[in-house]
Amino acid sequence: MIKPENLSLLTDLYELTMMQGYFFHSPRSRGVFDMFYRYQPFNGGYVIMAGLAPLLDVLEDFRFGNEELKYLESRGIFREEFLDYLSKFRFGGDVYSVKEGTVIFPKEPVLRVHGSIMEAQIVESLVLNFINFQSLIATKASRVTDAAGGGPVMEFGLRRAQGIDGALSASRAAYIGGTSATSNLLAGRIYDIPVAGTMAHSWVMSFETELSSFEKYAEIYPRNCILLIDTFDTLNSGIRNAMKVFKKLEDRDDVNMAVRLDSGDLEYLSKKVRRILDDNDLEKVKIIASSDLDEWIIRQLRDSGAPIDSWGVGTKLVSGAGASALSGVYKITSMGEEGAEKPRIKISNQSDKITDPGIKNVMRFFNNENVMLADLIFLESEKEDLQEKVKKREPVRFNHPSTEYSRFTMREYSSIELLLRQVMKNGKRVEPAPGLSEIKKYREEQINSLDRTCRRFLNPHTYKVSISDELKKLKTGMIEKTKGENNTY
Amino acid sequence: MIKPENLSLLTDLYELTMMQGYFFHSPRSRGVFDMFYRYQPFNGGYVIMAGLAPLLDVLEDFRFGNEELKYLESRGIFREEFLDYLSKFRFGGDVYSVKEGTVIFPKEPVLRVHGSIMEAQIVESLVLNFINFQSLIATKASRVTDAAGGGPVMEFGLRRAQGIDGALSASRAAYIGGTSATSNLLAGRIYDIPVAGTMAHSWVMSFETELSSFEKYAEIYPRNCILLIDTFDTLNSGIRNAMKVFKKLEDRDDVNMAVRLDSGDLEYLSKKVRRILDDNDLEKVKIIASSDLDEWIIRQLRDSGAPIDSWGVGTKLVSGAGASALSGVYKITSMGEEGAEKPRIKISNQSDKITDPGIKNVMRFFNNENVMLADLIFLESEKEDLQEKVKKREPVRFNHPSTEYSRFTMREYSSIELLLRQVMKNGKRVEPAPGLSEIKKYREEQINSLDRTCRRFLNPHTYKVSISDELKKLKTGMIEKTKGENNTY
Repeated sequence: MIKPENLSLLTDLYELTMMQGYFFHSPRSRGVFDMFYRYQPFNGGYVIMAGLAPLLDVLEDFRFGNEELKYLESRGIFREEFLDYLSKFRFGGDVYSVKEGTVIFPKEPVLRVHGSIMEAQIVESLVLNFINFQSLIATKASRVTDAAGGGPVMEFGLRRAQGIDGALSASRAAYIGGTSATSNLLAGRIYDIPVAGTMAHSWVMSFETELSSFEKYAEIYPRNCILLIDTFDTLNSGIRNAMKVFKKLEDRDDVNMAVRLDSGDLEYLSKKVRRILDDNDLEKVKIIASSDLDEWIIRQLRDSGAPIDSWGVGTKLVSGAGASALSGVYKITSMGEEGAEKPRIKISNQSDKITDPGIKNVMRFFNNENVMLADLIFLESEKEDLQEKVKKREPVRFNHPSTEYSRFTMREYSSIELLLRQVMKNGKRVEPAPGLSEIKKYREEQINSLDRTCRRFLNPHTYKVSISDELKKLKTGMIEKTKGENNTY
Repeated sequence: MIKPENLSLLTDLYELTMMQGYFFHSPRSRGVFDMFYRYQPFNGGYVIMAGLAPLLDVLEDFRFGNEELKYLESRGIFREEFLDYLSKFRFGGDVYSVKEGTVIFPKEPVLRVHGSIMEAQIVESLVLNFINFQSLIATKASRVTDAAGGGPVMEFGLRRAQGIDGALSASRAAYIGGTSATSNLLAGRIYDIPVAGTMAHSWVMSFETELSSFEKYAEIYPRNCILLIDTFDTLNSGIRNAMKVFKKLEDRDDVNMAVRLDSGDLEYLSKKVRRILDDNDLEKVKIIASSDLDEWIIRQLRDSGAPIDSWGVGTKLVSGAGASALSGVYKITSMGEEGAEKPRIKISNQSDKITDPGIKNVMRFFNNENVMLADLIFLESEKEDLQEKVKKREPVRFNHPSTEYSRFTMREYSSIELLLRQVMKNGKRVEPAPGLSEIKKYREEQINSLDRTCRRFLNPHTYKVSISDELKKLKTGMIEKTKGENNTY
């Protein structure tokens, strides 16, 4: 894995100032934090969880080296005793998480960290950086490949990605989200993703004629002859020269022949090019399109019958165009010394920023066709009762997370799944990370379990995420108590 | 500097397939490439160049290690002779560039690479990744700090940034663009940027009462008492509790006292909070605002007279919200064996994708108040004539880059500047990288030299970038020749 030598300082200063505060004020306290996201990116209907395996790698290795400690000391705000504590610090917490590739929804906990209040706090920025970005890109890729309807999508984003790691982790996340290959060799090597790519305009421009550039290319790469035909004039020059080269190759059955369109009106050009190829007995030659594509354009092109076989998507995929960040947050839900932990809540003047208190999990309900019906957030303390109930397929009450009288009863369901599972115990993984292709396959199954209406790009169906009776009781009680206290001023 | 051990594979596969092509077809050819960007991000009027120093660091170290070569070999498309060449490969080219912090405009070359065609080609993805992203963020930061009108802006983006390096290089670029500090400790350490930050909601929520959380904080950090007042209820609880703490501190003159608002209507709350503070003789306490800010919201708040002293900007700054990528490209402009180099052009069906051929530089004209008037792209071969001309303050012809009869004559100007200077010779820097504060200062001077109308957020003035008579002649001739040839089909 590619990462800077030591990531312990990849954190916000306030995490460390708070950590020092806890160290002196409440060193024996335990804390539990939830990660969840607030709003749907891309105005879409779902998000794909990604970034967990690389995050756990970093947590397992987490330590402050001498250079890091020296830097902290030079800030002049950290006391010796605390720095000494940091020098021996390891992340020894427990982590519960949904699997990478899982379809997730706003406001449900998708990752939960238990530990000393210091260790649970210090990892906030890391957790958010890894999960927010990779989930954003896995989601974008899932939308793009959904639009492509099975036609392979190659990820070409390196040159416009947000930094080195913006490219590398985007390639990983995009592959989880459904792309077939990346152009980025380093991502290919690190994550074992297939790599693809052929020629740029500079190749064609470096020759005296377009034809000689194609001929030379075919000579060097006789097995994989993908020619970029828009350098000068797609229809009057590019496709004609490409055909001259293909004609010489065509009896060789194992040659992968294709043309790539990288500018102009892709519907118009792909239809013309297809016709020209077919008229010349080159039905076998495929058409690849690129040029600032996203899920909307791909869907539009397919709806219009553009005969494009595969897609190269770069900028808009790896930078999550349309939603440059996922709105993930990391909030404390429980704190106290062992045995005396109490649930915590944030009230805020903005009602959508009120958090769900307590240690929680999520139960997902499915119908008999394995389609997701709704998710229920509940307290871990109710788990056994709830499991007993669903075992008997008894009805379960679902309460809207904030609207007082909005609720329903889930009566018909065929199976359930608990989303949060322990992935780390005392700072160590409980099992090895799954391979990337396994995660990719899981994402596919997940998407197939999601009702089609939630996959719409425009105005998608809102999947129901509700809270249990017990959680509602706890939350309402805490809000009343806090509001009551504060209103006395 | 933080970077993976070896970045030689941080490239698109096609760069290497083309490189191998050149290796066998035209190994003695020299190539010249320009980097330029096509469209204004954020519908703005300018871009700030950034990312050069880290890019040159990587180019100086560029080499393929054993692991990288083994991976390439395993692809099955690279021949032994070429892999052998790669094993000894170093980047030995020349680089010309505008300085970091320079105000730049669409379609003018801002970085130029000369080298063997292999070495000039292979660095494409690296050049674009570094310059595109850092310039995007420096530009966004420049807009945000422009909106803040001198009020300090702290960059808080780590948790929503696009990956590790999306955070680190964003902190660097944002600092160049005008922010005063970052929350990211690692960025602070690597780039020597001031770090800032105090407490999150979790700190407040971890105490039995809001007041005790503030008291404890003030006890531990008596010099820098910035209290987050929106965890429960800003006006009924937060500000009241904060004042109790400040009252105890207030006679201590060297204490930095402030409250931070992180939710709700920032205009309404800041006005109320300012009034409450002033009514309680706490004029000295500052108000800091955060909560999904960008240049538009900050400007609106200031226009409405919101008494906010400083700003925390995260997500929308470091991810370049509104334009998740800069549209920079890297195009070949000249190629051939030494002494026989010929200019190259890309024609394309999309007229805005036609490139400017030949080895070029940019001359920037200023009036007697040091305000930028217009930029002229010209051929290096005309440089001396042109310099002679401007020395005598003779009129200079400016031609629109594509519209045939659109042109003007620059008659009144006071000084000029050549934008592209050599920064690397035979793969080595010609001088040490300037420090970050020097770059930051240069950016400020640059912005002050830019006409106010180009800094408007809405419908900014389009700064004129033109081409010289000679360049126009070359370009027109090449287009006619190519079009002529292709139309014969």
